[in-house]
Amino acid sequence: MMYRELEYFIAEDAGEDIYPGITGNRHCRAVIKANEPGVMAGISEACQIFKYFDNTEIIHQVTDGALVGKNTTILETSGRADGTLKGERLALNFIGRMSGIATLTNTFKKLAGNTVIAATRKTTPGFRKFEKKAVILGGGDPHRYNLSDMVMIKDNHIKLLGIEQAVKNAKKIAGFTRKIEIEIEQIKDAVLAARLGVDIIMLDNCTPEQIRAIMELLEKENLRKKITLEASGSINTKNIKEYAATGVDVISIGSLTHSAAWLDVSMSILS
Amino acid sequence: MMYRELEYFIAEDAGEDIYPGITGNRHCRAVIKANEPGVMAGISEACQIFKYFDNTEIIHQVTDGALVGKNTTILETSGRADGTLKGERLALNFIGRMSGIATLTNTFKKLAGNTVIAATRKTTPGFRKFEKKAVILGGGDPHRYNLSDMVMIKDNHIKLLGIEQAVKNAKKIAGFTRKIEIEIEQIKDAVLAARLGVDIIMLDNCTPEQIRAIMELLEKENLRKKITLEASGSINTKNIKEYAATGVDVISIGSLTHSAAWLDVSMSILS
Amino acid sequence: MMYRELEYFIAEDAGEDIYPGITGNRHCRAVIKANEPGVMAGISEACQIFKYFDNTEIIHQVTDGALVGKNTTILETSGRADGTLKGERLALNFIGRMSGIATLTNTFKKLAGNTVIAATRKTTPGFRKFEKKAVILGGGDPHRYNLSDMVMIKDNHIKLLGIEQAVKNAKKIAGFTRKIEIEIEQIKDAVLAARLGVDIIMLDNCTPEQIRAIMELLEKENLRKKITLEASGSINTKNIKEYAATGVDVISIGSLTHSAAWLDVSMSILS
Amino acid sequence: MMYRELEYFIAEDAGEDIYPGITGNRHCRAVIKANEPGVMAGISEACQIFKYFDNTEIIHQVTDGALVGKNTTILETSGRADGTLKGERLALNFIGRMSGIATLTNTFKKLAGNTVIAATRKTTPGFRKFEKKAVILGGGDPHRYNLSDMVMIKDNHIKLLGIEQAVKNAKKIAGFTRKIEIEIEQIKDAVLAARLGVDIIMLDNCTPEQIRAIMELLEKENLRKKITLEASGSINTKNIKEYAATGVDVISIGSLTHSAAWLDVSMSILS
Amino acid sequence: MMYRELEYFIAEDAGEDIYPGITGNRHCRAVIKANEPGVMAGISEACQIFKYFDNTEIIHQVTDGALVGKNTTILETSGRADGTLKGERLALNFIGRMSGIATLTNTFKKLAGNTVIAATRKTTPGFRKFEKKAVILGGGDPHRYNLSDMVMIKDNHIKLLGIEQAVKNAKKIAGFTRKIEIEIEQIKDAVLAARLGVDIIMLDNCTPEQIRAIMELLEKENLRKKITLEASGSINTKNIKEYAATGVDVISIGSLTHSAAWLDVSMSILS
Amino acid sequence: MMYRELEYFIAEDAGEDIYPGITGNRHCRAVIKANEPGVMAGISEACQIFKYFDNTEIIHQVTDGALVGKNTTILETSGRADGTLKGERLALNFIGRMSGIATLTNTFKKLAGNTVIAATRKTTPGFRKFEKKAVILGGGDPHRYNLSDMVMIKDNHIKLLGIEQAVKNAKKIAGFTRKIEIEIEQIKDAVLAARLGVDIIMLDNCTPEQIRAIMELLEKENLRKKITLEASGSINTKNIKEYAATGVDVISIGSLTHSAAWLDVSMSILS
Repeated sequence: MMYRELEYFIAEDAGEDIYPGITGNRHCRAVIKANEPGVMAGISEACQIFKYFDNTEIIHQVTDGALVGKNTTILETSGRADGTLKGERLALNFIGRMSGIATLTNTFKKLAGNTVIAATRKTTPGFRKFEKKAVILGGGDPHRYNLSDMVMIKDNHIKLLGIEQAVKNAKKIAGFTRKIEIEIEQIKDAVLAARLGVDIIMLDNCTPEQIRAIMELLEKENLRKKITLEASGSINTKNIKEYAATGVDVISIGSLTHSAAWLDVSMSILS
Repeated sequence: MMYRELEYFIAEDAGEDIYPGITGNRHCRAVIKANEPGVMAGISEACQIFKYFDNTEIIHQVTDGALVGKNTTILETSGRADGTLKGERLALNFIGRMSGIATLTNTFKKLAGNTVIAATRKTTPGFRKFEKKAVILGGGDPHRYNLSDMVMIKDNHIKLLGIEQAVKNAKKIAGFTRKIEIEIEQIKDAVLAARLGVDIIMLDNCTPEQIRAIMELLEKENLRKKITLEASGSINTKNIKEYAATGVDVISIGSLTHSAAWLDVSMSILS
Repeated sequence: MMYRELEYFIAEDAGEDIYPGITGNRHCRAVIKANEPGVMAGISEACQIFKYFDNTEIIHQVTDGALVGKNTTILETSGRADGTLKGERLALNFIGRMSGIATLTNTFKKLAGNTVIAATRKTTPGFRKFEKKAVILGGGDPHRYNLSDMVMIKDNHIKLLGIEQAVKNAKKIAGFTRKIEIEIEQIKDAVLAARLGVDIIMLDNCTPEQIRAIMELLEKENLRKKITLEASGSINTKNIKEYAATGVDVISIGSLTHSAAWLDVSMSILS
Repeated sequence: MMYRELEYFIAEDAGEDIYPGITGNRHCRAVIKANEPGVMAGISEACQIFKYFDNTEIIHQVTDGALVGKNTTILETSGRADGTLKGERLALNFIGRMSGIATLTNTFKKLAGNTVIAATRKTTPGFRKFEKKAVILGGGDPHRYNLSDMVMIKDNHIKLLGIEQAVKNAKKIAGFTRKIEIEIEQIKDAVLAARLGVDIIMLDNCTPEQIRAIMELLEKENLRKKITLEASGSINTKNIKEYAATGVDVISIGSLTHSAAWLDVSMSILS
Repeated sequence: MMYRELEYFIAEDAGEDIYPGITGNRHCRAVIKANEPGVMAGISEACQIFKYFDNTEIIHQVTDGALVGKNTTILETSGRADGTLKGERLALNFIGRMSGIATLTNTFKKLAGNTVIAATRKTTPGFRKFEKKAVILGGGDPHRYNLSDMVMIKDNHIKLLGIEQAVKNAKKIAGFTRKIEIEIEQIKDAVLAARLGVDIIMLDNCTPEQIRAIMELLEKENLRKKITLEASGSINTKNIKEYAATGVDVISIGSLTHSAAWLDVSMSILS
Repeated sequence: MMYRELEYFIAEDAGEDIYPGITGNRHCRAVIKANEPGVMAGISEACQIFKYFDNTEIIHQVTDGALVGKNTTILETSGRADGTLKGERLALNFIGRMSGIATLTNTFKKLAGNTVIAATRKTTPGFRKFEKKAVILGGGDPHRYNLSDMVMIKDNHIKLLGIEQAVKNAKKIAGFTRKIEIEIEQIKDAVLAARLGVDIIMLDNCTPEQIRAIMELLEKENLRKKITLEASGSINTKNIKEYAATGVDVISIGSLTHSAAWLDVSMSILS
């Protein structure tokens, strides 16, 4: 069993692949190392890549989700040098990008305590599966995967329909398996939405004070327990503690997937 | 004519797409704006996305490659609200990610003057085409696209074969259309490689001083003009001027594609 | 915009398609009729098929979801006879199968009153999208689309883990966007599951009496309102009223998708 | 070697598949049973599915095409519980649908004696391969697979061209490898078609009496032996014996593929 | 409607296609000419290619299947120079290869008179559709398209099973829609096969004398009329008349698809 | 690891593949032989095909690139007869076509001595990878693979832009990794192009005399060493020695890929 996408990604990096390699029939043993500390992700994908290139021995030294220190050997592989070197860049791209996301997620998660840290749909086209998976490995929540997963009423829907009509329409199509989430920007809208029976309210670009005010109002109306509250917009490692302290249930952060720096990883030939 | 990948990316974000939308038969007019200044990229892809969703009028206000200021309207589109809103996130993901890369490339390019700024293969699996294209739009050079495009002798090849054998093998397979590039880390290796007749030498993790020393040696041996010199490794916006000042021909930077922050763009319904 | 799958389905029915047709350059006008009453589905797909075959005029006489009487003209199309006749069988297969499902769903829905009628994952491999969509058009709920959509604890999971461990594990991975459903077969398990905080309980192969007993217990424990109750197993048009009368929220029925008879539809050339 | 389509079907049922399963590293042993008697089909596909999910031991207890009694164990498999449970529904969908078709075909075949029982192109889009294969396993003939397989002159072709012109055109394109079949509804047309030299005549919606009349005429004209006669239209388990008794060569039945009830099969965890 | 494969072929020739072209916004008008006489094929595919590249005016000057003289303008197209030049090579590859096959087929056909000229499965992997179509356009018969189209008993089957068993097995699986063909090399085997009731006998590597001997034997046994006789093996433009003169029904020739020289075609920019 | 395209090619030749084969559970041992001498290519692809069909033992008797004599056994395979016979034609098509190209390339190469023999983009759509690879195996150079690989200025570009503008535009987009080649037909254009700094000049349809004249001029201007000279157009086995004698660096020949005769290969069942 191999992720279906891998073959496509391999072709992207290999090109037409009609030329013989320069290493002839040489075999080699190689290791991939994390050059900086972080939460690992992409190792199982890297293993699949080396397997594709007929490497005979592929050893996880570390499993996805583990927190490793600087200069840790993650993976060891041996086989024909030609295949090992063809797989190198793609394997590193997987581990570098996914571990970068997992590590950043983990940083936020530690700062946020019990508050759920969630991703958004601000992902790289074609690579969402792996970016969302990296968020999970870092201790975060992937949030909805795509447009079909929940019914989400966003600012532009409200501009077209108003909150009441939008929620009414959403209820018609949500069914009993899908939750309804609404994005609101003003205090009064939160209460209205809660009364209309949505499951999740996303407070977009609200200050911690505004969030507290909304929560008080909801509690006063006995609506707080029925609603999952999600804060979003301009939340970073500096202000997240303040947001988490409001008691909001979820904090969603676009930068988990769109601005995480890659973890520095590299491959070396041992012999 | 549409990029073949778009349909796949649309499916990724749309999911099974069996539910009716909540906007019924409503039509709308929407604009996409850049919320911060930058070099635009991904607009033609965004237009294809809205075309896919049967939008009837799609107007480029700005073309790919243009430098725009804060709050510039980039694109205007009108059609069924259902399709427009389905296309929103993917269009923004394209523009946000690609413009982020184009803008960062441009920043480096301005600092580097006449020196070529080049990308690497450190790209997101499945999205290389668009990341490399964004580098071009930002004024950079995409470097080789994949493993088949040049013969590149990297550190791990040298560890296995040594420089002389590696270049010998490379010449056998390069043909007359492909250039040969070698990655070296020591001064003496640069001269050896140049004598052996490679086209490009990549100086990996060398200091500006080391680069200057290599260039002097090459000039002394009358080899400088035959060789394209590329510097790589730990070059950032702070030290790039110093690297460019060495007279190196090309500076390649992995962070162009793996660490560019997304440009902040958003879509608003006008009516 | 065209459903991506259609091109694949067209190839399946067309074969290599290297031979000229027998109708030469003839054009024709054709209608598709429902030969028996039913709820229509698949018409928009049929239109896409004729569009693929370059038909110039394609007129919906009836829209998907409409209830039509015997001998109703559903769709009219004109263009080259060659393309029209190539599209005939596939268009009819779509309408016949999807309308059959929509019609059966509707029959159940009418008998069940306010109770939700839901489908299952007992669908034809490769055609789930259209079978679930037909259920929606017939007034039913598609239930979860695939394994990633909810966390569903089924009999085999319980056999492996027990209810308590299974729910505990489910909560760890469900996140805040996904509901948890559990399938139970005994009265006491329903109460246990409800106490553990699942969202939906599916009562598998329970009699109406057993369902009533479970509901009473849940109400006694003040758990009924927090739980969506779904009945499943051997429910048909004869006994559904009795099941609906129990007050269960949802009745799920595998036969909607796996045993619906096709609606009888046919195409005739007018000229 | 695996049917190419399986990977696509697996993705349909698995969804994005980024979440860890709830069974952790548990292994299990499971059996699939037929809960009612029938002719088995889809077992080899089910085995491929479990193989895809890395099950280590997969044992056919019964082979495709076998007639089994109630409560027969068909297949036994063991491996990681996570993979086994991911494969469960798809494996059952294959066996349930295909065995349903094989069983219905077999029922007709037994009633029809030496007369060939054939399917039609009234199949589920995307699943024809498996539905036609199930017909073969049940003892039937798949009939032509797609539009390129024979030249078939149907009612709509005749409406456009008339019988003579249609057959003339068909002969031009059929080549020496493809047979020509014509669908007729009137006695005199059968004789005309036979004289024109078609290979197969399909008598659509004719009564047994009409079929006998046609056969007598053809015999009188010494054409019967050259022609394969196929009866089609409204033939069911009640009237098939009467049709078979006419001496017609083939009886084709749309309901084999479009209305076969699924065979009831289920999977149980043993340990 | 566009042949599905074209998009794949376009990607093969275009590569990653991230670079701007060198012709900027220039438009042009271009013609494709046949530089030597021949039977044209591939023109409709070429038109689809230019359409893909957004050419606005695409005019067939000649249709597929036409016999043209030297220096004939086949197709005229206008649009952006960038797209026109991207389509050039692929369009020419289609026309060159397909017209080469159509022309060679036609040459054989003219020499063979009423005898059918047929192709084989000796085609280029991935391009069979277009090679078989070119044979039809040149006046030939494509023969069976693939392994599922007829039941063909070849030399290696006979080595394994013997003729009698092979035909017996073939009859079990052929059904009423598929013909049975057998390849034989000896006179006595032809009579045996004919008695066993196959539809087509392929006489492999027989001399015209042997073919005549077989035909006489078959006629003597009153089997000739029931059998289509196909000659194959080492038949070329020099000896085909002699083979055709034997009265054989079909002559199949591998070189139609595997050795046809490309027709010389080229594109010129008019303005 | 298997070439991704193989599965597609297998499906092309197998068709729907729903029928049981005629050889039942028989196993067999088979050999593929070259019936005439030549340079072998396509053997590794053939091995992958038999592996796909679950053959258990597949032995290369000869490796790709080897020159073999008449009647040489190339490959031996054993397994189920059904799979072996399904793979036969496709394996032979690969070896026949690829070895034909490799052999013709080798013939040219031997005549040309040190001059590089190169292919063109005149390849069969969808099969370029294997045709270019066969050229390499025969000792030739594949030339650029696709439109993205070099910047090539052809006659039609020059007609639109003139040489100076075309080279200027090409330099803007070539980057430091891609070479620039120009196609010229007149002596003076060669010098102009060389002065403008292109890497490769292709002399199209020039006589050996014209080529010599160009070379003299280039040497006089001290430009010869900086330029790779490629001759193309109407070069065949009769005149290639004369062309090679001019001292041109590369001779490119369309017929390598578009007119190579297939090498005669066949498969026999041993037992």
